Amino acid sequence: MIDVGIIGATGYAGVELIRILHGHPQVHIRALGSVSFEGQDISDIYPSLAGICPQKLLATDEVIDACQVIFASVPHGVSEEIGRKCVDQDKLLIDLGADFRLTDPEDYKEWYKLEYKDPELHKQSVYSIPELHREKVKGAKIIGNPGCYPTSIALGLFPALKACVIDPDTIVIDSKSGVTGAGRGLSQTSHYPDCNEAFSPYKIASHRHTPEIEQTISQIVGRDVLITFVPHLLPVNRGIVSTIYSKLKTPLSPKEVHELYAHTYQGEQFVRVMKEGQAANLKNVRGSNYCDISLHVDTRTNRLIVVSTIDNMVKGAAGQAIQNMNLALGFPEDMGLHLAPLCF
Amino acid sequence: MIDVGIIGATGYAGVELIRILHGHPQVHIRALGSVSFEGQDISDIYPSLAGICPQKLLATDEVIDACQVIFASVPHGVSEEIGRKCVDQDKLLIDLGADFRLTDPEDYKEWYKLEYKDPELHKQSVYSIPELHREKVKGAKIIGNPGCYPTSIALGLFPALKACVIDPDTIVIDSKSGVTGAGRGLSQTSHYPDCNEAFSPYKIASHRHTPEIEQTISQIVGRDVLITFVPHLLPVNRGIVSTIYSKLKTPLSPKEVHELYAHTYQGEQFVRVMKEGQAANLKNVRGSNYCDISLHVDTRTNRLIVVSTIDNMVKGAAGQAIQNMNLALGFPEDMGLHLAPLCF
Amino acid sequence: MIDVGIIGATGYAGVELIRILHGHPQVHIRALGSVSFEGQDISDIYPSLAGICPQKLLATDEVIDACQVIFASVPHGVSEEIGRKCVDQDKLLIDLGADFRLTDPEDYKEWYKLEYKDPELHKQSVYSIPELHREKVKGAKIIGNPGCYPTSIALGLFPALKACVIDPDTIVIDSKSGVTGAGRGLSQTSHYPDCNEAFSPYKIASHRHTPEIEQTISQIVGRDVLITFVPHLLPVNRGIVSTIYSKLKTPLSPKEVHELYAHTYQGEQFVRVMKEGQAANLKNVRGSNYCDISLHVDTRTNRLIVVSTIDNMVKGAAGQAIQNMNLALGFPEDMGLHLAPLCF
Amino acid sequence: MIDVGIIGATGYAGVELIRILHGHPQVHIRALGSVSFEGQDISDIYPSLAGICPQKLLATDEVIDACQVIFASVPHGVSEEIGRKCVDQDKLLIDLGADFRLTDPEDYKEWYKLEYKDPELHKQSVYSIPELHREKVKGAKIIGNPGCYPTSIALGLFPALKACVIDPDTIVIDSKSGVTGAGRGLSQTSHYPDCNEAFSPYKIASHRHTPEIEQTISQIVGRDVLITFVPHLLPVNRGIVSTIYSKLKTPLSPKEVHELYAHTYQGEQFVRVMKEGQAANLKNVRGSNYCDISLHVDTRTNRLIVVSTIDNMVKGAAGQAIQNMNLALGFPEDMGLHLAPLCF
Repeated sequence: MIDVGIIGATGYAGVELIRILHGHPQVHIRALGSVSFEGQDISDIYPSLAGICPQKLLATDEVIDACQVIFASVPHGVSEEIGRKCVDQDKLLIDLGADFRLTDPEDYKEWYKLEYKDPELHKQSVYSIPELHREKVKGAKIIGNPGCYPTSIALGLFPALKACVIDPDTIVIDSKSGVTGAGRGLSQTSHYPDCNEAFSPYKIASHRHTPEIEQTISQIVGRDVLITFVPHLLPVNRGIVSTIYSKLKTPLSPKEVHELYAHTYQGEQFVRVMKEGQAANLKNVRGSNYCDISLHVDTRTNRLIVVSTIDNMVKGAAGQAIQNMNLALGFPEDMGLHLAPLCF
Repeated sequence: MIDVGIIGATGYAGVELIRILHGHPQVHIRALGSVSFEGQDISDIYPSLAGICPQKLLATDEVIDACQVIFASVPHGVSEEIGRKCVDQDKLLIDLGADFRLTDPEDYKEWYKLEYKDPELHKQSVYSIPELHREKVKGAKIIGNPGCYPTSIALGLFPALKACVIDPDTIVIDSKSGVTGAGRGLSQTSHYPDCNEAFSPYKIASHRHTPEIEQTISQIVGRDVLITFVPHLLPVNRGIVSTIYSKLKTPLSPKEVHELYAHTYQGEQFVRVMKEGQAANLKNVRGSNYCDISLHVDTRTNRLIVVSTIDNMVKGAAGQAIQNMNLALGFPEDMGLHLAPLCF
Repeated sequence: MIDVGIIGATGYAGVELIRILHGHPQVHIRALGSVSFEGQDISDIYPSLAGICPQKLLATDEVIDACQVIFASVPHGVSEEIGRKCVDQDKLLIDLGADFRLTDPEDYKEWYKLEYKDPELHKQSVYSIPELHREKVKGAKIIGNPGCYPTSIALGLFPALKACVIDPDTIVIDSKSGVTGAGRGLSQTSHYPDCNEAFSPYKIASHRHTPEIEQTISQIVGRDVLITFVPHLLPVNRGIVSTIYSKLKTPLSPKEVHELYAHTYQGEQFVRVMKEGQAANLKNVRGSNYCDISLHVDTRTNRLIVVSTIDNMVKGAAGQAIQNMNLALGFPEDMGLHLAPLCF
Repeated sequence: MIDVGIIGATGYAGVELIRILHGHPQVHIRALGSVSFEGQDISDIYPSLAGICPQKLLATDEVIDACQVIFASVPHGVSEEIGRKCVDQDKLLIDLGADFRLTDPEDYKEWYKLEYKDPELHKQSVYSIPELHREKVKGAKIIGNPGCYPTSIALGLFPALKACVIDPDTIVIDSKSGVTGAGRGLSQTSHYPDCNEAFSPYKIASHRHTPEIEQTISQIVGRDVLITFVPHLLPVNRGIVSTIYSKLKTPLSPKEVHELYAHTYQGEQFVRVMKEGQAANLKNVRGSNYCDISLHVDTRTNRLIVVSTIDNMVKGAAGQAIQNMNLALGFPEDMGLHLAPLCF
């Protein structure tokens, strides 16, 4: 049994880590950290965890000291210090925030208005969507766990980009995310009467996940690519749907596109290429680590339309982090992740 | 006072017509028609109308005979016969269905799998989004009231297309509609546990509103244009948000785009061009006849992003029909339509 | 035209006052007050009001000085000072808060932990649910507008209590309110992911509306009555449903109960006694000033079950306030209040 | 490994059985039955099950023949025939419908308008809420799995009734259920625009779960008791909250009531008595087999208020059925049921 700890345990991603790790056969949740609620029982803040997780919330350092694997879900700018301590103590850090996602320090500076203070650390970190990068994870000391939008988009575009069937410069991504994506912190936009029965885009063509999306696309394509990315706030708790538009380089039938994707993702346990004629729906992945992808061709305009959906809290955060942990520790990649979706 | 009647009064658009006409100072709701509920009180089916609308539901012909203006909200293929009777009795028909929207019979045949049986009738009809076509409405005998998606999209694109600042061949439209758009008829996709906490596109690049959208765009541009249109089902009761992407022909600043739209819609009472930095949200138009438009430029990729939102039941159906009625009868265009939105 | 002002204009009740007064033929919204947003345009905070209400937000005193009628929707403890100024300037104050609802200062002290500082003022104020107290309103200087729960409950119980057909000591009230009832202020319980797909009672048998409910019941019955009142937070924006249980003193048939209620409320424009067999549903009153009441008898246990529903923002706040204003000013009681419900 | 089958697999309870049994270490889902969809893949109807459950849907008899344990989730009146076949083949039937819940054939006749055709069969069946009846389950041939409302209510009342601290004749139960409780079948009341942003009671004092509730209460009390039960339709997918009112025979403090409940349920894995001051919320049990109970005393009126919440699909259906299966087969009662709630 591996002792794991969670820093930022009272955030939504933290609670989701607890929910999933609770059923993982090879780990023991040893320590939970919280700056805001230190000293309280986690079950006082989340009564859903009564009888499941009896832990008291500890200080950050206590969590690092007590555990072999540390998950951190903290605001950007905070993870470097945690990472340094983990590396120095020879412990694995899986960071669910943004600090270890971007390889180019200039991107981080431009989009997050901060600089890397410990550049050496970043050389020891890997960014991993397991389906694309799993070979890099084994033995990593720090894993930069991907953002929710970038995960849905990278998995949705990977086969088409790799096979060079679309023009990368025509990519337009219209994403919709449930409100947990905005976190547990209070804000007017997450106030129930303001976002119930409402719908709107936000951070239009300026969301911080943009450079992460472009980083992955550019790596696949082999040159710098810019895309247009517009997220919307969806009045549901969980889930992301990304509708991704691009021009096909040469006309392809729906069947050909389907075969390309089915072939590329053959053997992947957490990517489900839907049957022709089906459309991806976030309800079908709720609570699970799946990414469902449906494929559509607008033959009139020669555009490929990919619809990619994940649970932003699972494949977009806690589930993928555990998938990365499994890879890093040499466990079967799907261990503890056989969660059937709650489709209603 | 004008006697008006509603055929298909128990559908959502019918009930919305009753709600709004109830406050119109120059009309009297004289007769309501329903095939399914003939003989019953409308308030037995909609208790919300108790004390407001005491009418019994009548047969179609009774409605036509009793009224000067007839609104029809019926399945496609049914309105031609109603239209013929209205024209023969010299009455005004405002058709909220699809039968008088498409000018090219071939489009109707291709997308609706039906043929116009009474082609003469269509020559006496006009299709009218008032902000674009109001001069044609006066004296019309049949008005083809626009579809909900096409209204949001035409108003969102009109200034940019008219000023030739975007490339029409790059237009991609990602629309999201509340569930009333699917009507009162039962279906698995509108079953509460199936569409609550769910989100998915449908009729991807194959929705019947596509030729109507293209008809309007092509008329503005002066040549045939094909666009990509993908609607999604949004778990809210009312409202449409269309996020519309296109390439700018030459770079424009957000300010320049804003000025173009503000100038074009100057004096329009029902189109609100939002301030720079705001994003259109369907909650702000709920229950009202407004179309809110926000404008955004992705300067990195030189794309214009227009966000256009309406209440699908009002500006997308009943409200616009009443606006068209006002125009046809020579009333002030906004009479009875000063409905403040229920933003929560 | 009467100049009216709203203090606390950016709260939900304030915005709802603007929405309804916008359509009132005899008033002009002259001034809006806000402590938090003084100096800003109301439409910057509520884009739904763009083109409808161009006003800037002012200080409290500016509102009082500029208007003949003042609506105040402010936290308890703040209204006395406003009331004093209004009375001294011979202006009408309609207070939507709790400060002028309770006739016994001891009740106010016990439940609100504050004392009346200006007891003289309270003698000049009246508490008015118009259907019960309309004769007291004419000429009043200060009107204490009832709370939302108490309105639904008083209207639901009045005929049965007045006719002495139920035992007051057996009354149990199980109420459910939409989230706007908790106001625009941020709180964890109103955070979307916390209250969407959730349901729970709160302030169980300890809600501050309890003494107001008991005050009205006791007045009707003619002696002090204590009741059990449990409110619940309902994941909808608007509306209250109160399910009210009591023992019938002698067995009555559903028909007899229905006749009692229909007779008592005969001629009332805003109370709709539903037909036998129907059940009150908050959707049928949304956006309107109606109170819908359905009546049920559990003949097996000899209990009367009254279901009473209102829109908490309209009949439970802004609409009733305007109804009271109409009475005080001698306008027709229903002026500006013919709002058809948005039942979907 | 035990081969289990599900008859009525495409209903909500059926799909929930699949979801939970998928993680049960000692069973293998061998066969799924469906009258409506025989011959189709379950994953074509529920894409959420793609990759999880590859089964085709079979006829009822095929399921019985292939399995040792059969779960049936079918309309009332259908289970007797299934039960007869199972008993004859010496197989265990767990019936999630109403046919084996009522011990008195007269109750079944009165409330379901049907008669038991095979009375012998009912003598071999047991009704089991495990926390109350677990000792009866071992060796049973047919288990009548309790209804959702009765489960929440029986667990909420059991300690107080058993300890004789409340007057059973004063019990009033106000329950609220998510829409999955109404099943997958289409109906106007489950149509999204009709039940979203809506709330209403239904089957007031006439719901078919009433005799089941009274049967359990009467058994505990030792005499016939009648209660008032009013269910409401709650606009959420899952979950029941029952707010249960009764008069205390003698005054008890909140602390005393809490101790009574904590003591009674000591050692129970699936009943969580909440801390004093907390209120049960359905979000805290979503997706799990827990029943959360919070306790409140209205000291002013001497009433006990119990709030009991379950996930209607889990503890109210599939989860409890599996708990009963575990008991019947001699497995640990909680096997496969360690499901952490999805609290958001």
